[in-house]
Amino acid sequence: MTKVGILTSGGDCPGLNAVIRGAVLKGETVHGQEFVGFLDGWRGLVEGDAVPLDRSSVRGLSNQGGTILGTSRFGPYQTPEGGAQNIARTLDKLGVDAVIAIGGEGTAAASKRLFEEGIRIVGVPKTIDNDLGRTDYCFGFDTAVEIATVAIDRLRTTGNSHKRCMVLEVMGRHAGWIALHSGTAGGAHAILIPEQPESIDQICAWAMSVRDRGRAPMVVVAEGFTLPDMTEAHSHKGLDGFDRPRLGGIAEILAPIIEERTGIETRATVLGHIQRGGVPTAFDRVLATRLGMAVTDLVADEDWGHMVALHGTRIARVGFDEALAHHKLVPQERYQEMRVLFG
Amino acid sequence: MTKVGILTSGGDCPGLNAVIRGAVLKGETVHGQEFVGFLDGWRGLVEGDAVPLDRSSVRGLSNQGGTILGTSRFGPYQTPEGGAQNIARTLDKLGVDAVIAIGGEGTAAASKRLFEEGIRIVGVPKTIDNDLGRTDYCFGFDTAVEIATVAIDRLRTTGNSHKRCMVLEVMGRHAGWIALHSGTAGGAHAILIPEQPESIDQICAWAMSVRDRGRAPMVVVAEGFTLPDMTEAHSHKGLDGFDRPRLGGIAEILAPIIEERTGIETRATVLGHIQRGGVPTAFDRVLATRLGMAVTDLVADEDWGHMVALHGTRIARVGFDEALAHHKLVPQERYQEMRVLFG
Amino acid sequence: MTKVGILTSGGDCPGLNAVIRGAVLKGETVHGQEFVGFLDGWRGLVEGDAVPLDRSSVRGLSNQGGTILGTSRFGPYQTPEGGAQNIARTLDKLGVDAVIAIGGEGTAAASKRLFEEGIRIVGVPKTIDNDLGRTDYCFGFDTAVEIATVAIDRLRTTGNSHKRCMVLEVMGRHAGWIALHSGTAGGAHAILIPEQPESIDQICAWAMSVRDRGRAPMVVVAEGFTLPDMTEAHSHKGLDGFDRPRLGGIAEILAPIIEERTGIETRATVLGHIQRGGVPTAFDRVLATRLGMAVTDLVADEDWGHMVALHGTRIARVGFDEALAHHKLVPQERYQEMRVLFG
Amino acid sequence: MTKVGILTSGGDCPGLNAVIRGAVLKGETVHGQEFVGFLDGWRGLVEGDAVPLDRSSVRGLSNQGGTILGTSRFGPYQTPEGGAQNIARTLDKLGVDAVIAIGGEGTAAASKRLFEEGIRIVGVPKTIDNDLGRTDYCFGFDTAVEIATVAIDRLRTTGNSHKRCMVLEVMGRHAGWIALHSGTAGGAHAILIPEQPESIDQICAWAMSVRDRGRAPMVVVAEGFTLPDMTEAHSHKGLDGFDRPRLGGIAEILAPIIEERTGIETRATVLGHIQRGGVPTAFDRVLATRLGMAVTDLVADEDWGHMVALHGTRIARVGFDEALAHHKLVPQERYQEMRVLFG
Repeated sequence: MTKVGILTSGGDCPGLNAVIRGAVLKGETVHGQEFVGFLDGWRGLVEGDAVPLDRSSVRGLSNQGGTILGTSRFGPYQTPEGGAQNIARTLDKLGVDAVIAIGGEGTAAASKRLFEEGIRIVGVPKTIDNDLGRTDYCFGFDTAVEIATVAIDRLRTTGNSHKRCMVLEVMGRHAGWIALHSGTAGGAHAILIPEQPESIDQICAWAMSVRDRGRAPMVVVAEGFTLPDMTEAHSHKGLDGFDRPRLGGIAEILAPIIEERTGIETRATVLGHIQRGGVPTAFDRVLATRLGMAVTDLVADEDWGHMVALHGTRIARVGFDEALAHHKLVPQERYQEMRVLFG
Repeated sequence: MTKVGILTSGGDCPGLNAVIRGAVLKGETVHGQEFVGFLDGWRGLVEGDAVPLDRSSVRGLSNQGGTILGTSRFGPYQTPEGGAQNIARTLDKLGVDAVIAIGGEGTAAASKRLFEEGIRIVGVPKTIDNDLGRTDYCFGFDTAVEIATVAIDRLRTTGNSHKRCMVLEVMGRHAGWIALHSGTAGGAHAILIPEQPESIDQICAWAMSVRDRGRAPMVVVAEGFTLPDMTEAHSHKGLDGFDRPRLGGIAEILAPIIEERTGIETRATVLGHIQRGGVPTAFDRVLATRLGMAVTDLVADEDWGHMVALHGTRIARVGFDEALAHHKLVPQERYQEMRVLFG
Repeated sequence: MTKVGILTSGGDCPGLNAVIRGAVLKGETVHGQEFVGFLDGWRGLVEGDAVPLDRSSVRGLSNQGGTILGTSRFGPYQTPEGGAQNIARTLDKLGVDAVIAIGGEGTAAASKRLFEEGIRIVGVPKTIDNDLGRTDYCFGFDTAVEIATVAIDRLRTTGNSHKRCMVLEVMGRHAGWIALHSGTAGGAHAILIPEQPESIDQICAWAMSVRDRGRAPMVVVAEGFTLPDMTEAHSHKGLDGFDRPRLGGIAEILAPIIEERTGIETRATVLGHIQRGGVPTAFDRVLATRLGMAVTDLVADEDWGHMVALHGTRIARVGFDEALAHHKLVPQERYQEMRVLFG
Repeated sequence: MTKVGILTSGGDCPGLNAVIRGAVLKGETVHGQEFVGFLDGWRGLVEGDAVPLDRSSVRGLSNQGGTILGTSRFGPYQTPEGGAQNIARTLDKLGVDAVIAIGGEGTAAASKRLFEEGIRIVGVPKTIDNDLGRTDYCFGFDTAVEIATVAIDRLRTTGNSHKRCMVLEVMGRHAGWIALHSGTAGGAHAILIPEQPESIDQICAWAMSVRDRGRAPMVVVAEGFTLPDMTEAHSHKGLDGFDRPRLGGIAEILAPIIEERTGIETRATVLGHIQRGGVPTAFDRVLATRLGMAVTDLVADEDWGHMVALHGTRIARVGFDEALAHHKLVPQERYQEMRVLFG
C-alpha cells in the first residue's frame, strides 16, 4: 500500500482543507493509499513531524477555512536538516512513499528541485493572488474576490450617502487579479493594479468625472500598485517581504492625494487578512475538492514532478517546470477590456 | 449610430442586470451604440414595447438580482404578431438596428430562426441549470450553487444534531449541474441527478453506510431525478411544463422511502425559487459583465447569429446552431469522479 | 466541586453550542464547576449516557450550528426508566449534582415537574419560534429571521422580474414571530400568522393593490396560519405533531387560490429546515453565550427551578412556572402596527 | 395635512433608508402626513434644499444600505444661515410643519436646542457605536457587530493555520459595544475597549496563555482603546476629530508589541468603513422600520422634543434631554462578565 504524505505551505487560503479531504477520501477509497499529514508545511516534512490522516480526520472539512495541518513559510532547502537527501531519509524512516505539496510559487519551485533530486513529489497549486501559470484559477481566489466584492458593495452605500470617494485596497502584490475581478463585480470606477501604470492625474480625472455625474467614486487598488511618480514615501514598502497587509499602504497614500487634488472627501480602507481566511465559496470548494481527488491519481500513476490544474472545466496535469515558467499577470487586453468603462 | 435593442427572456437568473449594464456601458463608450430595452422578453420586441436605456438607467446594477427589463416565457413565434417579418417591421418602426437576446435554450432556438430569417440578432446564453452547450458556465449558475451549498451547510448541522438523514432538492430538470456542484461543495453523501440512474436500494445503502459510521446522511437531489422503479406517483410531475418548483417533488418522494427502508428519520427540503433570485456572486457578476460587454463587439462586427460564451477564462463567440447542437448534461465521468466518495 | 450535567432537547436551533460553551467556560473558570453532557437530550439523562465536557470539548463552538450533545424529542417522563426517582438515582450514580436543561416549552414543563419532585435543575429557554414567555427573545430566532429575510430579498427580485406574486412559508406553528419579523425586514406586502385571521378576500385585495401599483406582491405566511374558510384540504395538516416542514403546506394552498382569484401568476416557496441549522448570527451567539454563562450562576446559587432569560439587555432569572404561564404569541397591536402597511 | 421634513445626519449607518421608508409609509397611510426629505443632513434644512418623498420614493428601501437623502456632518448652528429663527423661516417658506431628525448624539443635542427655541422637531436615534442613552439598541449596531463577527471567524482560521495572534480593530471611539459583542460572538481571547484599562502585560499574558494551550490568540480592540502606558506614539490620534478609520491605529500599535513581548507572530487588521455600509441585518431592518413608523406617531401627537427608542421589545418615547444625559458606555459588570473568560 502506498503511503502518501501531505503538506500545506505558504499563506492561508480558503480550500486547503477541502483539498486534503478530497485527497484522503479518494486516495483511500479508489487507490488504496494511506495518508499522513506533515505539520506546518515543509517544517513537518524536514523534521519528520507527521500525523496519521484518514477518513475520520477529514470529516466535515469541505467548508472549513484554514488547514488542519498548519502552514508556514519554512522552505525545504532553508536549513541544514533540509534538502533532498535528508528528506529522502526522513521519508524512508516514516515509510512515506510520496509527497503531495499544496502551495504557491515557492512551493512549486522547491517541489521541482526536490523532484529533480529524486523525491517522489506531486503538487496542488495554491495562491490567493491567482498568479500561478498554467491553471485557469487557483482555489481561494474566488473566495477572496467574493469578500472584496461584498466590501465594495458596503463601501459604495457609504460613499454615496456622504458623496465621498472610497478607496479599497485589496491583496495582490505582483498581480492585480483580485482587484480586477472584485472591481468589475462591484462596479468600481477605477481599478489600479501592479501590472498597469496609471498616473495620479488620470486617477483624479476618473474621480472627478464620476463626481460630475453626481456619483461617489469607488476606487479599487491592489496592494502592489505604485504611482509612477511615487518616491520614497511609498517605495520602502517594496522592501517588506512579508505577508503583512500594509497598513498605511497604497490606499492610504492615494486617499489624501485624491482628496487634495479633486476636492472630493476621500476615505481609505485596507481589507487585509480577512480576504484569505474562513469558509470558502462553493466554487472554491468544488475546485479544491476536485484538485485534491485528482492529485491522488498522479500518485497512483507515479506521475512525479507534476501538479494538477484547472483548464476550462477539466482537471489537467502540468509539470512544475511548465507552471513556473509562466507567472500569470493580468494581461494588457483584460485590463483594457475594463478600463474603457472607468470614470 | 447603431441602435440596439436588448431583451431578457425565460426564468429569472442572477446576473441579468449585470449583462445589461455591461452592454450599455461598453456599447455607448466604445462603439457609440445607442440602446433600448424591450420589456418582458420577446413580448416587448413583438409588441414594440421598449424603453430607452443609457448609462444612468444601468447605474448600480452590477449587484442587483433580477432584470430591470422584466422577463417572460413568451416566444417570438408564439403569436400572429410575431415572426421575423413582423418583428423586422417593428424594429424598423422603432429604428432599432440590432437585437441582443439574453436567454436560454428556447431563446437561442428562436434567435437562430430569426437570424436565418434575416433579423440582425446576437445572444447571451443564460441558464441557471448550466446546460447550454459550448460555454463552460452560464452566469447565475454559480449563485445558484452557492445558495444550495449554504443550505446544505445549514441542513447538515441539523442532521447531525438529530441523527437524521436530510434530503435537499435543488433545481435541475434535465441537467444535474447544480446538484453535482453543491453536493460536492457541501460534502453530500449522495448526489442524484437526472442523467444518472440510481436505485433506491443503492441510495439506502449509502445512507446506512453513513449512519453506520455514526454520521447523518446528506442527500442532494436534482428536481429532475427519477427512480427507475418509480411509477405514477411521480411520473405525472413530468407533465408540468412550468417553472414551478415542485412542492411534493422528488425529495418528498424519497424521504419517506429512505426513512422506511433504513429506519433513519429523514426530512425533505425543497429549495425552490430562492436559487434563482437576488444578489449574484462575484463570479457571476464578472462573467455577466464581461459577456454583456463582449456582445456589443458582436454587434459592432455585425457577427449576427452568434452568441458570446466562456471558454476557460476567455470570452468566445459561438454560433446559435453550434450551441444548440450540444445540450450540456453532466457527463458520466464527472459523475463517477464524485460517486466513488458516496456513502 | 459541583458536577453539572447539560442536555439539549427538542428541535435544532442555532446557538445551542454557544450556550454549552458559555456554560462550561464560565462554570469551570468562575465557579469551579465540572461538566458532563447528556447525549441526545433527555434520553442521555434517563439512560445515564453522558460524556465529559471541559474547555477543550467546547473550543471553537461559538459559531457552530447544531449541538455537539445531540438532541431528540424524547421526554423524561416518557418511559418507565424516566421520572424523578429514576433520574435522581442515575444522577447519583454518575455523581452529577445538578442539571442544566436547554430546551423549549416541553423541556421547561418537564424541568418544572422534575424540580417539584426534587431534582436540582435549571434551564435555558430555546425556541426558534420565539414563543416562550418571560424572555424578550430566544437564541436561534434572530438567525431564523435573518435566513427568512435573505430568502425574501431573493424572491422579490424574481417576483419583480416576472411580475409574479411570491408566497414564502416560514416556520411558526402557533406563533407568527418569524413571519412578522422577516416580513417586516423584507418589506412584505402581506404577513399572515396563526394568531390573526385574514380572509382570502383580504389577501387577494392586498395582492391586487400591489399589482395595481405595478409591483409584484410578496406574501409571507407562517406555517400555522389557516384560512378561516379552509376545510379538510388543509385541516389534516394540524394533526401532524412532528417537526416536519409541511411540504404542501399553507403556501402551496394559498398560491393557486391567489393566482386564480387575482389573475396574478403566483409561486410558493417553503423555506423549511434551513431556518434552524447552521452558523448563528452574532446576535444569537452573544445571547446564547450570555445565557450559557448566566445559567452557571443559577447552579452556583442553587436557584433550582429557574431559567435564565433576556429582559431588555439584561440577563434575568425566571421561574419555570412563570415562563410556562405565558405563551408569547404576537399581540394584536404588534400585528396591527405592521398591518396598516399591507397591500 | 401635516407636512413633515426628514433628514439624516452624521455617519452612514445601515437602516437609515428603512427608517425613512417606515416613516413615509405609515405617515401617509395612517396619519395622512405628507413628506419631504432634506438633502445632506442639516445642510438641506438650513438651505431649504428638499425633495418630495412619497410611497414610490421609498419603495424597495427596506434592505438598502445608506440614505437616499444623503448625510453630512454639517450642524444647524454651524453657519450664520442656521439657528432656530432662520430654520423656522425656511420651514415656513417650504410649508413644512415638523422635522424628523435621524442622527446621533450631535443631532440629538442640536435637535434639543432647536426644540427649546420653538422648532417642532422629533428624533430617531442613530449611532453605529450604540452609545446613545435610553435606548437598548440603535439600528446599525447589529449590522456592524455581524460584519465584525464574520471578520473574526475568517481571521481565526488564518490565525490557527499559522499559529499567529490576530488583532482586529473595530469601530468604537468612546464606547466598546461593537468590540464587546463581536468579540463575544467570535470567541475572542481578549476584548479591549475604551472604557476599561488593560495593561500590555495583561494582554500579553492572555495571548501567551492561549498559545500555551496550543491555540492562536484572537484579540478584538475598539479603535478608542488606549494603553495606559502609551505616550505620543498613539496620543496624537485622539486629536483626529473625523470619522476616518485610523489606518495605523491601535491595532497596528498593539500587534508589534505583542509579537515582540510574546514571541508570537502577530498581525493587525483594521476593519474600517465596511462596518457602516451596505445591507442591514434583519434585526436592524425591523428596528429601523418600527422606529420610522413610530416617529410619525410623535408628529401626530405633537410630542415635540422627543425621540423614539427601543425598550426591550417595545418602542418607547424619550426626551432629547433625557437621552443626552446618559452616554451609554459598556458598564463595568458587562465587561467583567466576559473578561473572566479571556486568555
